[in-house]
Amino acid sequence: MTETLKPYVIGLDLGGTNSVFGIVDSRGEIKATTSIKTQGYETVDKYVEASVDALQLIIDQVGGIDKIKSMGIGAPNGNYYNGTIEFAPNLEWGHNGIVPLAKLFSDKLGIPVALTNDANAAAIGEMTYGVARGMKNFIVITLGTGVGSGIVVNGQLVYGCDGFAGELGHVIVKENGRTCGCGRKGCLEAYCSATGVARTAREFLETSDEPSLLRDLDPAKITSLDVSIAAGKGDKLAQRVYDFTGRLLGESCANFTAFSSPEAFIFFGGLTKAGDLLMKPLKEAYDKNVLNIFKGKAKFLISGLEGSSAAVLGASAVGWEI
Amino acid sequence: MTETLKPYVIGLDLGGTNSVFGIVDSRGEIKATTSIKTQGYETVDKYVEASVDALQLIIDQVGGIDKIKSMGIGAPNGNYYNGTIEFAPNLEWGHNGIVPLAKLFSDKLGIPVALTNDANAAAIGEMTYGVARGMKNFIVITLGTGVGSGIVVNGQLVYGCDGFAGELGHVIVKENGRTCGCGRKGCLEAYCSATGVARTAREFLETSDEPSLLRDLDPAKITSLDVSIAAGKGDKLAQRVYDFTGRLLGESCANFTAFSSPEAFIFFGGLTKAGDLLMKPLKEAYDKNVLNIFKGKAKFLISGLEGSSAAVLGASAVGWEI
Repeated sequence: MTETLKPYVIGLDLGGTNSVFGIVDSRGEIKATTSIKTQGYETVDKYVEASVDALQLIIDQVGGIDKIKSMGIGAPNGNYYNGTIEFAPNLEWGHNGIVPLAKLFSDKLGIPVALTNDANAAAIGEMTYGVARGMKNFIVITLGTGVGSGIVVNGQLVYGCDGFAGELGHVIVKENGRTCGCGRKGCLEAYCSATGVARTAREFLETSDEPSLLRDLDPAKITSLDVSIAAGKGDKLAQRVYDFTGRLLGESCANFTAFSSPEAFIFFGGLTKAGDLLMKPLKEAYDKNVLNIFKGKAKFLISGLEGSSAAVLGASAVGWEI
Repeated sequence: MTETLKPYVIGLDLGGTNSVFGIVDSRGEIKATTSIKTQGYETVDKYVEASVDALQLIIDQVGGIDKIKSMGIGAPNGNYYNGTIEFAPNLEWGHNGIVPLAKLFSDKLGIPVALTNDANAAAIGEMTYGVARGMKNFIVITLGTGVGSGIVVNGQLVYGCDGFAGELGHVIVKENGRTCGCGRKGCLEAYCSATGVARTAREFLETSDEPSLLRDLDPAKITSLDVSIAAGKGDKLAQRVYDFTGRLLGESCANFTAFSSPEAFIFFGGLTKAGDLLMKPLKEAYDKNVLNIFKGKAKFLISGLEGSSAAVLGASAVGWEI
């Protein structure tokens, strides 16, 4: 059976709350989507069963399973080498062990299934459909609840010896810095994620008496969006929160360049909506801190896969790689 | 003409002081060597002429140029993509421009010539003849006058978009830290090179009254070897210098693992002679700082290419890659 008879792949963006499925063609057009809740299943088998039930409807819409080449999954703590999810803290059926999710889906659907972590899926998505088309060396940094990364070197994802490489959110950027969700101190994620931005805002509010629109909000409920709205209205304290965040991210990128000298850094996820508020101090700090020989070489781009479908497209791109 | 009729490659370890040439077989046995001074030539053409004159003798010893497949060069600021040395600060014929050294040698000798920086040459050397045989993901860190690195991912050297990737000596590890030779502050090289160790010793001596064998020496002339000899005699201050150095290097390696999750870190160069003085605090700091999922995975090895021939072997290995 030739390639053209199997024009689609299934993408699964497996998040902590929702599992979003899309059937995608080779140009990145999403032909059909569906979703289920990720939680609420006692076992992974029940989760896979519910997924396949939901999928069956959209598989039928595109002409049946024979039209589908493969499936790609982007999932937290996904291990590409083994097709497993390993000790994912936010998944009730995956937090205390190694779940062979790719094999479970493959057995049920009868097609090949590949799995990787969500940030790697984003990187493959950018390379397949997005702003990284044609690039051989780039780094995708996902700025959401956490900070993730997918690193491409010589046109290949960097998986390392164990499948877990590319955890730039857990590079320690501040000695004895903030406690991170991983249990260590000073990780990039503790500062430059959406939750990190909110944390910085709370710190700035606590340590000064400076007037700020943010003082009208319950400190515990401040979000990165609140901060960017306030900054957009000219709030100085809120602007300094993004200056601080962008600077730290720019300094970190300067260090990442010493590693793999990427053609571009591509930012993906909710925090990129802050736009120049974040990108301007980021680029300034990068230019100031990067080693001379690298100056002016890397581009700074925002993901070309905007909207809620980005993660599904990324996951589907993993399917094309099989 | 088959491979077996061309059983040798030429390796050139181009250092700031000496240029050492070796003719090497595929098992890493050095059949003949020669050297010239690197400096004292007005132009690069004169340097290449002197090199080829010296080489001619050893080429004849192994049966003539027809026995030689190619040449590999390891050089400071070497760019693999272009075969050039670019703005090498310590080379009088190479500090203010781009020198097409690979082409110049290739034109004179009539064989293919590849060039890379010295640390990348070391990494290819380890993969070809050394402790990294069979490894697909590892990082070589050279600890000499400076700190260099050669990073291998998926069995390939990481060159990045411009040929200059793998400059881990210039990752900034201390905010507003020591001034580095590159003009920035807080680079790993400013702490964990041989000169960095001497600098740490001077700082420790200046900022305390603690007795130390190192106080018998002219502070300006203290070397990393002096520090390791004193530490070996039980000198507490000297031991703390290596504790500090090893700890910083271990913390840095923990961050590097978040990037490429290597199977091994391989240390190369003069400072490795300190042995456990350096490696013990290094491994302890690594284990303490690395992200949980990576714990216990990476090996810490000392280069298998000991002695003065290591750099020539590394350079020759670049020749085999052509």
